[in-house]
Amino acid sequence: MKVKGTHYRSLWWNHDDDVLEIIDQRSLPYEFVTRQVKTMREFEDSIVEMRVRGAPLIGATAAYGMALAMKLDPSDANMDAAWASLNATRPTAINLRWALNRCRASLLPLNPSDRAAAALELAHAIADEDVEINRRIGVNGLKLIQHIASQKPDGEPVRLLTHCNAGWLATVDWGTATSPMYQAHDAGIPLHVWVDETRPRNQGALTSWELGSHGVPHTYITDNAGGHLMQHGQVDMVIVGTDRTTRRGDVCNKIGTYLKALAAHDNGVPFYVALPSPTIDWTVEEGVAEIPIEDRSPRETTHIQGTREDGSLDVVKVTPEGTAGGNPAFDVTPNRLVTGLITERGICDATPEGLAAMFPDLSKSET
Amino acid sequence: MKVKGTHYRSLWWNHDDDVLEIIDQRSLPYEFVTRQVKTMREFEDSIVEMRVRGAPLIGATAAYGMALAMKLDPSDANMDAAWASLNATRPTAINLRWALNRCRASLLPLNPSDRAAAALELAHAIADEDVEINRRIGVNGLKLIQHIASQKPDGEPVRLLTHCNAGWLATVDWGTATSPMYQAHDAGIPLHVWVDETRPRNQGALTSWELGSHGVPHTYITDNAGGHLMQHGQVDMVIVGTDRTTRRGDVCNKIGTYLKALAAHDNGVPFYVALPSPTIDWTVEEGVAEIPIEDRSPRETTHIQGTREDGSLDVVKVTPEGTAGGNPAFDVTPNRLVTGLITERGICDATPEGLAAMFPDLSKSET
Repeated sequence: MKVKGTHYRSLWWNHDDDVLEIIDQRSLPYEFVTRQVKTMREFEDSIVEMRVRGAPLIGATAAYGMALAMKLDPSDANMDAAWASLNATRPTAINLRWALNRCRASLLPLNPSDRAAAALELAHAIADEDVEINRRIGVNGLKLIQHIASQKPDGEPVRLLTHCNAGWLATVDWGTATSPMYQAHDAGIPLHVWVDETRPRNQGALTSWELGSHGVPHTYITDNAGGHLMQHGQVDMVIVGTDRTTRRGDVCNKIGTYLKALAAHDNGVPFYVALPSPTIDWTVEEGVAEIPIEDRSPRETTHIQGTREDGSLDVVKVTPEGTAGGNPAFDVTPNRLVTGLITERGICDATPEGLAAMFPDLSKSET
Repeated sequence: MKVKGTHYRSLWWNHDDDVLEIIDQRSLPYEFVTRQVKTMREFEDSIVEMRVRGAPLIGATAAYGMALAMKLDPSDANMDAAWASLNATRPTAINLRWALNRCRASLLPLNPSDRAAAALELAHAIADEDVEINRRIGVNGLKLIQHIASQKPDGEPVRLLTHCNAGWLATVDWGTATSPMYQAHDAGIPLHVWVDETRPRNQGALTSWELGSHGVPHTYITDNAGGHLMQHGQVDMVIVGTDRTTRRGDVCNKIGTYLKALAAHDNGVPFYVALPSPTIDWTVEEGVAEIPIEDRSPRETTHIQGTREDGSLDVVKVTPEGTAGGNPAFDVTPNRLVTGLITERGICDATPEGLAAMFPDLSKSET
């Protein structure tokens, strides 16, 4: 989407230097910094340190990482080594494994000398597919927003709430949860988005930056505020993304999503999850019991990054001496709390039947 | 409770200087600063700026403010003026109005020349009563913790979760939600407390500081984490405080409490609210509809205070340029989500009948 009037993707191939470029998201929303990723170590670090983040973007990045590995050494052994090291960077997002498996399946049958070029073409294809998938998610989600708008007086904004950043920064373009918002805004529907801060990493600041850059009205609220807003009729719909969705529609997403789903359910507010089909894990049924939840560094909880009065970046510690921080990074929202799933093919129920009917091809082939 | 081995209350009378002293809570948990409150303006600012905070402590502070007003000018007109200016400092906490009404009712019948001494004695009495009320809340809540402990293998900690700071810093001593914790810890029951950060003002850091100072094991978590912990059986009981409780047991407390109550309900985790009877507002029935919720400065949401590497205090901005912050400060938890109310008289149901049976004297007299 647009940054200061120029269209960007969150990663792109620099044909002059034959290298991947990314937006270093650790500097956002304060500074817009792009960076080249040139070594396997840099690929791994980019994912681990969340220079790139968001399940779809991690998947695309890993595909480019595999392309680099094949350029350096196209052997089967190196392919396995690259698969393992890239797969180990983040434990929860399913797209990472999905992208790596897809690369391995395509490349293994090839003659090693053909693998480097094929791997790069495949990475490009995965990135382009992601853009198209997310655009379609937006087109499908737009219908829900149009429906709400049609029931309001002219000019009254549709009030959405989102958690974390399932924005274009978390994908290659458009975003998942934000794609219907961008589509609606571009279609002239007045919107107001409540953006959850999303502690500990405050990805709400990224979502705010995205929405602000694109001109979408929004307000940054603490993660505690959403329930109160729903109790008082201030939220028409919740749209969030997901890092992994089970075959029955349980949704693993940024920690705190479950609390918003409970509040939406308690107040009759529709709770939708926008997801590209690669984030569906057909091997998992019960999300709470089966999905491993990443425990990240306590420092993300005890310390917060922001800008000082003079604009310089700084990190402050918010806890007293001697207090430990806990940091489970995701939670699982059971399907009973999910109104529907907005996918690239359409909107379906968050049930085994709903997902199987929408993705008959995938639900049978991938187990 | 104890700070570096010395017992403190959160406010106390300095008999040498004939002046109120407070702990300036804006410097906590980083620095322990005490301060004298000498003028009406300083009383008002202390409450508005949250140098003193927490419903019971605000009430006691207001009583000392009324005592100063009577010392300066014991006329009826000045009593009304002091009532109005002190009552206007915070809109939500019921104790403020309760304490001011109690002062006015006691002082109005007196000869103006007797009012200054009587007002000071009354403020002392209100402070001492608060300590005793909170001690009793702890004794009553202790039974719940003992019961949970009795069902666990020896040495396995009872895991509690709390939101905001309903600690001794929010009262004159003991705290409300923390009083059962201090009682249990002092009785040798192993505890572990999950402390919600409680954005936007991060009162979880105060609770962590309190618990750490008293030696109670605890972990600071984001407000998003509690639901996940409950899903995974990591929380045995939630205990929170309240700023105002309605006659049917709806609980107004720091924003985000409602979300934890929903999660506790969804996971079968007991959700208790510890409250002194002065926080019951017998004039209000339905909390969500009737209790005015304070909208505080957006800056509390967009900026965060903490310490830099060198230990100095600093404030960082966490939002991008052009993004507005929203800051509703409280929410209301409907009584259907509350397992029980821990009061100074005992534990009762969060129902009109439960409260009326526990407080027959108050439920009839105060309307």
